[in-house]
Amino acid sequence: MTHAEHPSLDPAGPTLAELSEIAVLQRIFPRLPESDATLVGPGDDAAVIAAPDGRFVVTTDMMIHGPDFRLAWSRPRDLGWKAAATNLSDVAAMGARPTALVVAIAAPQSLPVSVIEGIADGLREACAALAPGCGVVGGDLSASETLTIAVTAFGDLGGHAAVLRSGARPGDLVAIAEGGNTLGEAGRGLALLFTRGVDADGAPDAAAAAALRIEHPRLLGAQLRPAPPIAAGALAAASGATAMLDVSDGLALDAARIALASGVRIDFDSAELGGHPESALGGGEDHSLLACFADAVAIPAAFRVIGRVHALSAGEAAGITVDGAPHVLGGWDPYRGWDGHAG
Amino acid sequence: MTHAEHPSLDPAGPTLAELSEIAVLQRIFPRLPESDATLVGPGDDAAVIAAPDGRFVVTTDMMIHGPDFRLAWSRPRDLGWKAAATNLSDVAAMGARPTALVVAIAAPQSLPVSVIEGIADGLREACAALAPGCGVVGGDLSASETLTIAVTAFGDLGGHAAVLRSGARPGDLVAIAEGGNTLGEAGRGLALLFTRGVDADGAPDAAAAAALRIEHPRLLGAQLRPAPPIAAGALAAASGATAMLDVSDGLALDAARIALASGVRIDFDSAELGGHPESALGGGEDHSLLACFADAVAIPAAFRVIGRVHALSAGEAAGITVDGAPHVLGGWDPYRGWDGHAG
Repeated sequence: MTHAEHPSLDPAGPTLAELSEIAVLQRIFPRLPESDATLVGPGDDAAVIAAPDGRFVVTTDMMIHGPDFRLAWSRPRDLGWKAAATNLSDVAAMGARPTALVVAIAAPQSLPVSVIEGIADGLREACAALAPGCGVVGGDLSASETLTIAVTAFGDLGGHAAVLRSGARPGDLVAIAEGGNTLGEAGRGLALLFTRGVDADGAPDAAAAAALRIEHPRLLGAQLRPAPPIAAGALAAASGATAMLDVSDGLALDAARIALASGVRIDFDSAELGGHPESALGGGEDHSLLACFADAVAIPAAFRVIGRVHALSAGEAAGITVDGAPHVLGGWDPYRGWDGHAG
Repeated sequence: MTHAEHPSLDPAGPTLAELSEIAVLQRIFPRLPESDATLVGPGDDAAVIAAPDGRFVVTTDMMIHGPDFRLAWSRPRDLGWKAAATNLSDVAAMGARPTALVVAIAAPQSLPVSVIEGIADGLREACAALAPGCGVVGGDLSASETLTIAVTAFGDLGGHAAVLRSGARPGDLVAIAEGGNTLGEAGRGLALLFTRGVDADGAPDAAAAAALRIEHPRLLGAQLRPAPPIAAGALAAASGATAMLDVSDGLALDAARIALASGVRIDFDSAELGGHPESALGGGEDHSLLACFADAVAIPAAFRVIGRVHALSAGEAAGITVDGAPHVLGGWDPYRGWDGHAG
């Protein structure tokens, strides 16, 4: 990728090819967030992290230029933010408080170093805003023809049991914590980028995306810089949530995962799904937390009730309904959802 | 990459584009090694891993097609093996016993699924051979134009202090554990691949590499399927090692890192560096463990003494010497060492 293809990038700065690895790391390290859980930080063969209750939660997720983001649409600091936010959300969905990240970045030699600096800035901003005390404790920098960001995130359960997908029980209330976004906005933002964030040939276009951000700040923000309710995860665990997950593939599909794992039916009240119930059910990348709670418990304020768990009747398959009626599922598959366009 | 370019790949099987993500995962999961430390395994938003002494060691490293490996040279199971082995070695270098891995793989849609299966087989073989009880507890599968394997590895210090690079003291003995390889072999294997594992145009060639493996099994094996002395790391910690690291960028450069971090001079006895002392000092990717021990302690049998730590004299800079004489350092830089050739 070149400056001409990505006019939003700083054309004045050096590329990775023009600096040594050490010089690049010296520019990145001061920008990274520190972790309160660090016992041995970056600079040795490995880091050592505190796991005070004798366990740790771990999740990993890669973001790849092409299928997962386009430099024409995302600013570098958005990429770092989203790479952190999506992994933090998976930690929170277990009922844990995020403690630390390790981050591996692979990048073309022609990439301006300012892009890597921006990614580091975004990692720091996301940790500060979403999970204070969580920081980057290690990483890896490699050369690749494809810009790739791999984050592995850790969390502390604070003595609570992990909240799995399989614990929902008939009679439980089903509740959603949406954080700074609203269900369906991220998917609608992506649809806008694919239809109006492109040039006449259908290639991602930075100027068009910048205009869209001004016109639809909530939808583009939800897609490019999501603000999941990280702290709500540990609060749900402390309140006795019976099941929980990160809504990343659409509310309907992810709720069906809880239903299937728990052997129940989840029924949503469409009146509680906002002004675009089909977007709320079918959209992707919401990074809301969907949790089930026994009817009697005090549900944390970050959540609002949108449905209820029902026992399966004889012969009924586990799954979801909306206002008691069946709902057809869609979903995202990384090997089928990408057309290979550059940008 | 295509079958024609990579004749070693099974041309009969389906590609990633031809299967759903779930179908790919169903082929991979049974091949992956299980971890004894798993509390919650794959299938939820995140895994939960035991950290019995209230800490865990973590390291991450990416392998990228092009700079780090070529499908023309490595069999898929070699890739999985090496991705595990190199990360296990970083865990061992802290004095820890490896407990678990998470693995993120990004691959072109045109890649035969058999390549991903082979990578999973290699992960299992490496864990079984090098770190029994360690296994894969989670992962991520993505689409990318560039085959990329990102491993994050975890370890248990068993109540011992982590062995850092900064603890070497004057008078310590300097010892190496080479595992199944010998210092310098991996670098010599890579040099053979670059000079004789290529076709007339200089592109990596599978037939030439296969012939080289038969002719030079030790050198090619050290490069493509290294066998680091993983268990020696925790033994060194238990024996009171004062400093330790994974020798990945050449013995001389890595020893200089200990010397610099500890404020000492490390002197090697060239008679102890084998038949190719320049290869031993300058080669890369050995994944030996280099450790320092107080003169009085019982050094574990996996190690042999190759030098001694000396105090700096007035005005002397920290670094290494060989038979008391200065040694000029070289080293590997990911942004300068890759010519971009395909294969």
